[in-house]
Order: sequence, then C-alpha cells, then structure tokens
Amino acid sequence: MSAADRASVSSELPGPFTERLKQVLGAGNVLTDPADCWPYGQDNSRKHTLPDAVAFATTHAQVQEAVRLCNQYSVPLLARGRGTGTTGSAIPVRGGLVLSLERMDRIIEMDAANRVMRVEPGAINQAIQDQAAQHGFFWPPDPTSSAYCTVGGNIALNAAGPRALKYGSTRENVLGLVAVTGKGDEIHTGTYTTKGVVGYDLTRLLIGSEGTLAIVTQATLKLTPLPEARRTLQAVYDSVRAAATAVSRLMAQPVTPCALEFMDAAAIEMIRNYSQAELPQDAGALLMIELDGPEAAMDAAVTKISAAARGEGLLNLAAAKTKDEATALWATRKALSPALRNIAPNKLNEDVVVPVSRIPELIDGLEKLSREYGIPIVNFGHAGNGNIHVNLLYDTQDPQQERNALPCVSKVFDLVLALGGTLSGEHGIGVAKRDYINRAIDPVTLDLMRAIKRQFDPRGILNPDKIFPPP
Amino acid sequence: MSAADRASVSSELPGPFTERLKQVLGAGNVLTDPADCWPYGQDNSRKHTLPDAVAFATTHAQVQEAVRLCNQYSVPLLARGRGTGTTGSAIPVRGGLVLSLERMDRIIEMDAANRVMRVEPGAINQAIQDQAAQHGFFWPPDPTSSAYCTVGGNIALNAAGPRALKYGSTRENVLGLVAVTGKGDEIHTGTYTTKGVVGYDLTRLLIGSEGTLAIVTQATLKLTPLPEARRTLQAVYDSVRAAATAVSRLMAQPVTPCALEFMDAAAIEMIRNYSQAELPQDAGALLMIELDGPEAAMDAAVTKISAAARGEGLLNLAAAKTKDEATALWATRKALSPALRNIAPNKLNEDVVVPVSRIPELIDGLEKLSREYGIPIVNFGHAGNGNIHVNLLYDTQDPQQERNALPCVSKVFDLVLALGGTLSGEHGIGVAKRDYINRAIDPVTLDLMRAIKRQFDPRGILNPDKIFPPP
Repeated sequence: MSAADRASVSSELPGPFTERLKQVLGAGNVLTDPADCWPYGQDNSRKHTLPDAVAFATTHAQVQEAVRLCNQYSVPLLARGRGTGTTGSAIPVRGGLVLSLERMDRIIEMDAANRVMRVEPGAINQAIQDQAAQHGFFWPPDPTSSAYCTVGGNIALNAAGPRALKYGSTRENVLGLVAVTGKGDEIHTGTYTTKGVVGYDLTRLLIGSEGTLAIVTQATLKLTPLPEARRTLQAVYDSVRAAATAVSRLMAQPVTPCALEFMDAAAIEMIRNYSQAELPQDAGALLMIELDGPEAAMDAAVTKISAAARGEGLLNLAAAKTKDEATALWATRKALSPALRNIAPNKLNEDVVVPVSRIPELIDGLEKLSREYGIPIVNFGHAGNGNIHVNLLYDTQDPQQERNALPCVSKVFDLVLALGGTLSGEHGIGVAKRDYINRAIDPVTLDLMRAIKRQFDPRGILNPDKIFPPP
Repeated sequence: MSAADRASVSSELPGPFTERLKQVLGAGNVLTDPADCWPYGQDNSRKHTLPDAVAFATTHAQVQEAVRLCNQYSVPLLARGRGTGTTGSAIPVRGGLVLSLERMDRIIEMDAANRVMRVEPGAINQAIQDQAAQHGFFWPPDPTSSAYCTVGGNIALNAAGPRALKYGSTRENVLGLVAVTGKGDEIHTGTYTTKGVVGYDLTRLLIGSEGTLAIVTQATLKLTPLPEARRTLQAVYDSVRAAATAVSRLMAQPVTPCALEFMDAAAIEMIRNYSQAELPQDAGALLMIELDGPEAAMDAAVTKISAAARGEGLLNLAAAKTKDEATALWATRKALSPALRNIAPNKLNEDVVVPVSRIPELIDGLEKLSREYGIPIVNFGHAGNGNIHVNLLYDTQDPQQERNALPCVSKVFDLVLALGGTLSGEHGIGVAKRDYINRAIDPVTLDLMRAIKRQFDPRGILNPDKIFPPP
C-alpha cells in the first residue's frame, strides 16, 4: 500500500489518547516513535503500513480499557499476535493503535482429566503443544509457523495445517472464548464441556473473523490424545494428474490419514537437494502420506493406504524406514514455503480449496493459466482437504510478469470457484483477497455479515477494511 | 401453556394472508381447521399450543415466499421437522403459521468422492444414514430419534447422540447451508469443502439457533467412512461414584471410544427385564463402552479400554460376544428414554453437561436433591462428554411432588453451573429452559445474541419467545 493510499484513510492520534493509554498500560508499554512502531506495521504478507502507536497488554482489563479508549477517541485498533499471517490481516491499514498481545502468553490451566487447556491469546502454538504433550495430548492446529505463531492468531484466522485432514481446524478444537467486543464489552462464549447448545454459537463466529468482531483474551482449547504410533509414506507419480487421482482414491477408503500432502514437479525440484529420500528424476508429483493411531493398527493401515496409493503413474512408493527419515521428509515439506519466499519475495501464495475430486481439473487449469500469463506456478499443500497452496512466482524485474500477476490470480479464483471451491482454506481474507470475496459470497450474505459486524463493533474501530471491501 | 397465556400473545391471522399463502403453496398444502392444525402444535416436550395455520413447503422458493408473507402480515412463523425435540422449540407459542418441511425431504446429491451429501431439511436422519452406508459412509449425529427426526431439526438443535464423543455433534458435521432469513432473504453459508476461512462462520451460527434466525432449505453434510469393526463392552459397578471415576480413567487414555454411555441403578432396574446381558443384583451403575476402528486394532483397544474400566467397585466387565448381543444392549439403552416417558409422562428430562471429572460430584449432588425434594431422579446418558440426562420422575397425582418439581430443576441447573457445566448438551433451550439461560450466559453476551437475531429477523417473526426470555 502506498503512502498516499494510507494517508487518505489514516488519522493522527487525538491529543489525550496516548496519555490515557499510557496511564492504563504503563508508559513503558506504549510506543509512539515511528522507528519503534515500524516492525508492528507488517506481517508475513510483506505488506506494511505504519501504526500511530503500539501498545502491549498483559491483562484482560488492559485490553478492555484500550478498546474503550479507542472507541472514545475513534482510533482504529488492531490486535496482533506474532504477525505470521499471509493475507495482511495484521496490517494496520488505517494506522491507529496496534495492540500486541505477545506478552499475554500464559497457559492458565492444563486440565488433563477433561482434555482441556485454558490459555491467553499470546501463547505460542508450540508452547501449547509442549505443555499438552507432557500429559499425552496435542492441540490439532499445526500451521507451518507453529514454532512462533500465537493461538490468538490461530483463532483469528481459523488456522489449520496438515493434521486438519483428520483432526479439524481451529474451529473444531476450541470450546469457548472470553473476548472484548469492539464496543469494549466483555463476552463469554461457548462452554468448558465438549457439548453445548445454549444460545448462539459465538465461539465459531469469532473464529476466523480476523479480529474484526472482538479481541480474544482467553481461549478454552479442546485437546486430543497423542496417537500411539505414526507412519510416513512417500508416493512419487509421473504426473500431477496421476497423483491427484490417487488422492481421490485415498480419500474414498476408510483409513483417513492424519496428513496427505501434495507437491508438484516444480516444488519437488526445489527440495531435491534437501531431501534424503529417493526422488526419481522424472517425478511429476509427490504425495506425503502420514498415518497415526494405535500401533496394532499400523501395518494393516499401511497396507490399505499403499493399495490406494498404487495405480497408473506411480513411480515409487516407500515408507520412511526410521523416525529420522520421516522427520527429514517433514522438514523438507515445511521448508518449502520459506524457500519459495526466498526465491520469489513477492510470490503470491493463494491457499485455495476445491473438492478433492476436482484437484486434477484445478491443476490442469493452473498449468494453462501459467502458460497464458507467462508466470511460473508452484503448487503444494494439503491435498486431502483439497487445500492447495498455489504459488505464483513472478519476477518483479520483469514488467510483463509484474503486470500479469494480479490478473492471473483473479483467473485462479474464478477457476477455483467454478470447481465448487473457495478462496481460502486456512489463511483467511485479510486485505489480500477482500476484493475477491464478493465472487465467493453473494451480496445478501455479505451484507448480513457486515450487519453482524456492526453489533460487535458499531464504530468500526476493530481491524477496519479487512475481509470486506471498503464501501 | 394455558389457553389464557396463549391468548395474551397470539393474534388471529390477517384476512388476505391465508389466501395469499394458498396461492403460493397450493390450497391443498395449507391447513386452517383447528382439528387439522392440532397435531402440529406439539413436540416431544409434550407442550401444546394451537397454530392458526399449518402449511407444507416442498421448494426453497415456497419457503421464501411464505417467510415474506409472514413478514408482510407480521405473522409468527415456526419451521417444523418432525417435532421430536424435547424442549418445546417446535411449539408455536404465539400461534401463527407452522411451516412443515417434512415433505421437503430429498437427498439432492450423494458425492462419495468428496465425502459429501446435500439434502433438504425434511430428510430423515435414518434415510441419510442408509444412503451414506451404501457408499461406505455415515453421518455422525445419532439422536435416539434417528429413525424419525429430520436433518433440519438436527441442525436447529445441534443434535448429537452417543457417537458425538468421537465424531462430534451436528456442528462438526455440516459444511454449508442455504437458508432463508427472517427477512425473507436467501443466504448461502459455508463451503462445499472441508476447510474454508472466507468471511464469518454463519453455518455454525445457524446450527443450534432453534429456527430463530433463518430457515434452512438445504444442507451440505460432511460424511465419515464407516468403521471396519466395532466392539461393545459392558462394565457394571457397585456405585455411581465407582462408574463415574472409571469414566474419568477411560477419558484420560488415548483410545477414544465411539460411545461411553452411563446408567444409574434406577435406570438399570428399568431395563433389567429387557436385557439379555447379565446385570448383577447389586449393580449401582453401568457403563456401555463401544469402540470402533480398523479390525486389526480392536483386540489391543479392548485390552486398553478394559484396563481403564477396571478399578475399585467393578463388579463385572464383559464384551458382547455376538453382534446380536451388542444390538440387544443398544436396544435396551435406546429404550430407556421412551420407557421413562411411559412411566412418568410428565418427567422432566434435563440433558445437562459437566466436565467429565465432575460427574461424581454431579451424581452426589443429584442424590441429595432427590432426597431433599422427595422426587425420584433417574440418570443416564453420554458420560464421555459429561452429558447426563437427568430425569425427574415426579408423580402428577402427588401435589407435593408436583410443587417441588420445578424448584428441584432449578437447583439441578445451579449445581451443574457450579461444576463448570452448562444447561444443555444436545436438546437446546426452547421454552423449557429459556428462563434459566441468564444463569449460564451473562447479560452482555445475551444482548449481543439478541442483537444478532435482529439482523436476521428484524420483525421477530421466526420462532418467537424461544431461547431468550421474553423482555
């Protein structure tokens, strides 16, 4: 976003606002020097706009006071975790206050008997996993950024990852929330129990709402027992079509893998040098298939999964022989996204979703668009959910590629929607996709969402201009 | 509800309304004779109020037209499935129009490759199961009434059943909806894919909203592969406390049963005559534990579950030896609720939920209340979710019991909330619990829910006076 764009929507902070904020949060927890504020104006979308102030809250009461002040002085407010999102949800496009919750990171309670953990929003995903693992549990959402993303961010974007295939996304793994609405009201949603039908489901309404409705100050997480055993398979195919057809076969039989990851030939080339596993030279696509469950079931499950993986175009099917080999396979998979970022800093990574049976058509369509627009496209992702990360690696030094990039993205979305899919599986809309959302959601339904937003945030201070195109 | 009560809130149908409705739906699909309308004024709460008219819709367009007419003429509108709910959600407390969707029961599409089924709201749960099973799948929600309840009703109340323990409730098993809001607008929520973060989650907002926000005209259901094998165990304990402690042990180990059902001594006595299984005379409580998964995992799983089931107070632990024996066990379990209904037609069945670790305290507390108020209480239900059906079997011929019943229920709710639980796990609020909801949900959060309701249904025509106490 250019400086001119920003200036047109931003406003200076009103005089007494900063002083009052310092009273509430402590002077040392409020930054106003642009140099200090700068790092809080970006996220992993590589967009940037400078906030007018950054503040650090450590308690629910402070969050509530900060929201009330922003209301009183009409200051835009963006609650921020660690800025690992990729669609610009954490970019303060109108300036205003960025309220960082990174220091509000306590694990409040680990309740093994009820498979529940209560946490503050700044808790790191990995810290939650570590704590849960000590009691034999895990929390299913596992984005690539799990080592440094926060649970608040996971909730804001309904984060997922490979394991969502078997265990669901954030939406299926949160029981309840405490939050502060855009009005400054404290609300309590959901239950402490795994079932509950008492009023409207505000928990799921907040999950995936990208900080536009309320700021979560506490979350009750549903934990899942760690599986006893795990097996990792790698299947290499001569073509994307062969691999995509295998995905359909794998999802049509009863053993649901805990991960079913896909890479196309371009992605394979990128990791060839890192991988310890055999990667045939003529590999057109690769599937990583992970199974988990009781040890006693593993051999039979591997047999069934292997049978489904076999078929036309299979070049090689191998099980990781050691835990180290499996870990190495995952390391290469998880290195893909950052590696692509290094090669193409301005890559456009669209995490589109299509019904699993339509993946071959998606890949065919993407190849055509890549040729038509002259832009290399690398595809990988969570094939079992039909959630493919489509990476447009355009060269910013090439004026034609730069000109073609956004029109090509636009065609990618048209393709996905025509196949019965949608714009985002786990990254959300943010600013990056907000101008496309009216292709996925009809105007009446969008208006209803906006009307709901006004009930939570009548003055529109919370993360303005996200999800919905500005009127 | 007495006739006097009803008269105070009801209104006659305005003149042209019925004629216009007949034009839209066909004269043969609109009933106005009180004798014809009578059966549509009740549900399984055994409450009754007479609607002014009953109409049958078979298409989305008809539903939309009916809603628009009700808006125009300010006629209360209640969409109805088969009336199997237990909390009075389907009682037209203000009269008006009952719109039956029982004839809108098509299975629109069975898409095995994507594990998806699209259905109309009047489709019977069992018809969905039968269709899915032909392709090797099932749809997890399995209320006791599955043979005759509709998917629309399941969605309205976020229905569940024993399998929710492993597979989730309706909320976790619906991908998207088409619906008509109280304004008469058509909306499309969710996706056709298993992942999606595109705008607010209106799908889950509608699920469990008891027909107060919108009328669902189509649902996209997420199917699950049928498990390969199944084992049923029965564990009998000398006391409720011993059984409840076993539930905690069972839920603290990694093999999650697909059902973990509980019955107290009074419930056991009721089924003793029907059961083929051995039921020791000194049985204080019984657990039915069902496991499912790959055949290869079953023996090891049974070993682990048996180890967790063993402990102080165990009298007998036996596996069903044949499929018939397992079926008989389930038949007795499923007969419990109707059997209780026959014994005590006015029984109050509260499906409260507490954290699993608090079940022993719940049962102790219920025993105290039973003694204090002189009302027999029979408890059974979905122990793995902490979801206990608490049945107050009061004798309507006994004036003291009748006087005590509601005060006792009130104390039951206080107890449940004090234990960190909530009012309903799967039955919803309806009219039966609406006067208690403000004990479970704070006023600010309730007001926000009401504000959301107004965005969907500004004239308040959809299922008025449900969930929330009248102002």
